[in-house]
Amino acid sequence: MTVEKYGIFELKIVGAADPVATFTCGADSIKVSGFQSGEGMYAVRFMPKKEGEWKYSVKCGDSEKTGSFECVKNSGINHGPVEADGTAFRYADGSVFAPVGTTCYAWIHQPVELIEETYKSFENAPFNKVRMCLFPKHMPYNHNDPDLYPFEKDENGGWDVNRPCFKFWDHFDSCMMKLMDMGIEADLILFHPYDRWGFSKFSREEDFIYLDYCIRRLSAYRNIWWSLANEYDFVGTKTKDDWEAFGEKVNADDPYGHLLSIHNGMLIYPKTDWMTHVSIQHKVVANVSKWIREFNLPVIIDECGYEGNIEFGWGNLSAFEMVHRAWISVVKGGYITHGETYYREDEVLWWAKGGKLYGESPARFAFLKNLQYEIGVLQPTTFRALSDPNNPPDESAMGEHAPFFRALLALPEDERANKIAELTPNMGKNENYSLQYLGRSCPLFMDSMLPENGTYRVEVIDVWDMTRKTVLDGVCGRIKIPLPAKEGIAVLSTRLSGDNF
Amino acid sequence: MTVEKYGIFELKIVGAADPVATFTCGADSIKVSGFQSGEGMYAVRFMPKKEGEWKYSVKCGDSEKTGSFECVKNSGINHGPVEADGTAFRYADGSVFAPVGTTCYAWIHQPVELIEETYKSFENAPFNKVRMCLFPKHMPYNHNDPDLYPFEKDENGGWDVNRPCFKFWDHFDSCMMKLMDMGIEADLILFHPYDRWGFSKFSREEDFIYLDYCIRRLSAYRNIWWSLANEYDFVGTKTKDDWEAFGEKVNADDPYGHLLSIHNGMLIYPKTDWMTHVSIQHKVVANVSKWIREFNLPVIIDECGYEGNIEFGWGNLSAFEMVHRAWISVVKGGYITHGETYYREDEVLWWAKGGKLYGESPARFAFLKNLQYEIGVLQPTTFRALSDPNNPPDESAMGEHAPFFRALLALPEDERANKIAELTPNMGKNENYSLQYLGRSCPLFMDSMLPENGTYRVEVIDVWDMTRKTVLDGVCGRIKIPLPAKEGIAVLSTRLSGDNF
Repeated sequence: MTVEKYGIFELKIVGAADPVATFTCGADSIKVSGFQSGEGMYAVRFMPKKEGEWKYSVKCGDSEKTGSFECVKNSGINHGPVEADGTAFRYADGSVFAPVGTTCYAWIHQPVELIEETYKSFENAPFNKVRMCLFPKHMPYNHNDPDLYPFEKDENGGWDVNRPCFKFWDHFDSCMMKLMDMGIEADLILFHPYDRWGFSKFSREEDFIYLDYCIRRLSAYRNIWWSLANEYDFVGTKTKDDWEAFGEKVNADDPYGHLLSIHNGMLIYPKTDWMTHVSIQHKVVANVSKWIREFNLPVIIDECGYEGNIEFGWGNLSAFEMVHRAWISVVKGGYITHGETYYREDEVLWWAKGGKLYGESPARFAFLKNLQYEIGVLQPTTFRALSDPNNPPDESAMGEHAPFFRALLALPEDERANKIAELTPNMGKNENYSLQYLGRSCPLFMDSMLPENGTYRVEVIDVWDMTRKTVLDGVCGRIKIPLPAKEGIAVLSTRLSGDNF
Repeated sequence: MTVEKYGIFELKIVGAADPVATFTCGADSIKVSGFQSGEGMYAVRFMPKKEGEWKYSVKCGDSEKTGSFECVKNSGINHGPVEADGTAFRYADGSVFAPVGTTCYAWIHQPVELIEETYKSFENAPFNKVRMCLFPKHMPYNHNDPDLYPFEKDENGGWDVNRPCFKFWDHFDSCMMKLMDMGIEADLILFHPYDRWGFSKFSREEDFIYLDYCIRRLSAYRNIWWSLANEYDFVGTKTKDDWEAFGEKVNADDPYGHLLSIHNGMLIYPKTDWMTHVSIQHKVVANVSKWIREFNLPVIIDECGYEGNIEFGWGNLSAFEMVHRAWISVVKGGYITHGETYYREDEVLWWAKGGKLYGESPARFAFLKNLQYEIGVLQPTTFRALSDPNNPPDESAMGEHAPFFRALLALPEDERANKIAELTPNMGKNENYSLQYLGRSCPLFMDSMLPENGTYRVEVIDVWDMTRKTVLDGVCGRIKIPLPAKEGIAVLSTRLSGDNF
């Protein structure tokens, strides 16, 4: 038998409860706990991260079985799980990954025809990550009950966490597999506040049993990310202590160290050891560079509002505003997640249920994503000339704005820091590229500075019209860039030769 | 001789220096100092604020002259000086005044043909206040020297503050008179940082001589407002102590108590006794309701950026963004000042030099101004239901958003206050009207609550297209308002009968 690297090897075990397997390849030895997959049926899933012959032995009670399989090179779109890489991401095989996510919280809880429609939308959309809940969701536009729940009920009508609903989990497996085949990361939300069924009211013991099952059953999917919560601070039934316990448990028990984070409602969760990246809800996306500095981890603004027209402020951004926020986040070295909430009588809104995408922003996310993959990871720039009061620019460099610069340098330290953040352009750089997004500013031209030694190309990008136009070529040093004096313009400078940016 | 109430009575005195006059009408007695108006010529100006016979006596050295004039009822557009009225304004005769200002810092320092063009623009524009400097201005797009300066030079080439340039001041008088005849308030900036001539480098004594002359010569104009500074904190040559001394002096010496404020670059000037209103530079105009609360004075955002396309972030707002900021300021109970900075090769930009208006926002300021005068002064609303943690809304009122509301109520006090401010709609009320501006939100409908007892009309306003459409009429209580799902929409509810808003 052969399994691709980062693929899933599954052992089915009939009758023997609580299997535990050890997988060995050369010096590598990994212990994996199995899970109940049906009445009297168990399984162990394993994701090999190394090519070669893997031997295994499975203990079920007193008996022990052994076997082996051949792990072969990954191929096609299989690049392995996504990992944090500094303040960016990459796939385990080293390939580039830039998360361009979307949000469909309860898509797995919808009727099968709707799920099929969602798959079609995924196939035609640019999104390579989806934020989704394991539990069903109760909220405006989320009133239908799902066909299946993760657990069976006990004799008192409560949930019995020790009795998984196998039909639910089989369905969930099929969803995960389909996403994996489409190259989409599943940013799986384990807890959330919008609950009318009682899933948010488990005891700590029940929560652990639930988490345990998730980890045993799902962690072999290379495309899973653990999101402890959607809006942790809105989950009135859990405390900081709970979230810490969950984070530590998932971190300790997941054999593969999948990406792990927690998403806020209002208060951003502080940095912890188990956190691999930062998952933020905030509408002021320009803060992303500050959060990158503070956390020194990749930052995804997983909720900045949604393109749509519903009655809630978070759900009626214009398509332009959604795209505008995405560009700010990306040029400042972060990532952002799309969402769509166009009103429909049938309550099938993409943000919750999937279905069809109606908006104008996905095409612009595709355009931006192409650029992200073309130019690679960006580091945010700071308004450096003014950030050091002991080394201010000289008066001649201040020019006619000298009164402003002097006042800025005279500000108290924290006020100066805030002002400098506000003044810092939406701009990111790496050695070959410098990308600035002008946002809602509408200049007719821009004075700018390229390195003195080299040749550079300057393109003007219209983020809404999705056009790129070279306006200067082979230039260096001080330049004047002609611009179209409209909102939604970015300027991309490319190094053709000479000094890095 | 007759003079209108709030008009100017001027006594010309030849040869006798330092005249001081006392004007008496019934129990009112007002002492007014004169000023030198030419070589060997002096004048005393007086603005009567009461109808009837005014008697005066003028002392010049040892001699004394007496006389009288008849003060008659004000007429036409003469409503007297503007005064603060709580957190709003009114004219001295009780008429409504809502400042809808614009900015032409150095228009008086331009060639006469350009000044004539500026007057034409004023006549056709909605603006009833102009921010303007007494001293000339040095800055990008401000490179031409004026023909006249306020003072003559001494033998060393420095300014002699004891020798006013009478040609300058005669010119300035003609500008003031013209503005007065057009019903435009002159928000006169007494000091500013953008100086290559040395006017910002006077000693305290020289500053006082200059201020003294301004007050003696200009305070009889009913349309003058004193703005101690443009961007006081960028004037590196003055200290807090200077500004306080200037404020106290103007307040003490101006016989009429004209409006008096000071405008910031970055740090808003703290409240003082001499301040009649707040003149703010800030781009986050939604703070206006916070500033109104803090200062308990009228608040004008005199600089929030300018409609234009120049290279500086403050000078390249789209016309929509300029209008958007105006609506936010106004519905939250404040006021805002327009400005325009469209690039021109000849450097004649409205914001500095006047000339022609090219932008699309002035027509929208006119539309908004009409509405302001129609509905009267608005008080900003707060997100009241959530502002008192001891009296939270009950669970049923929280509805499906209960997790969010509970989390909000659980926030630390200052974070809760910030969040509530952020959540508070852009909305103002008085007894007859409720006006909400939806800004960049694009809902298809809005659930809202009118008083239960009465009949009300609901209009949907498009702030850009300048249209008003009645969508509900004769309704009360809980309503659902159909909306066009686009940016720049406001909702005006009008009481037809029954309970006040």
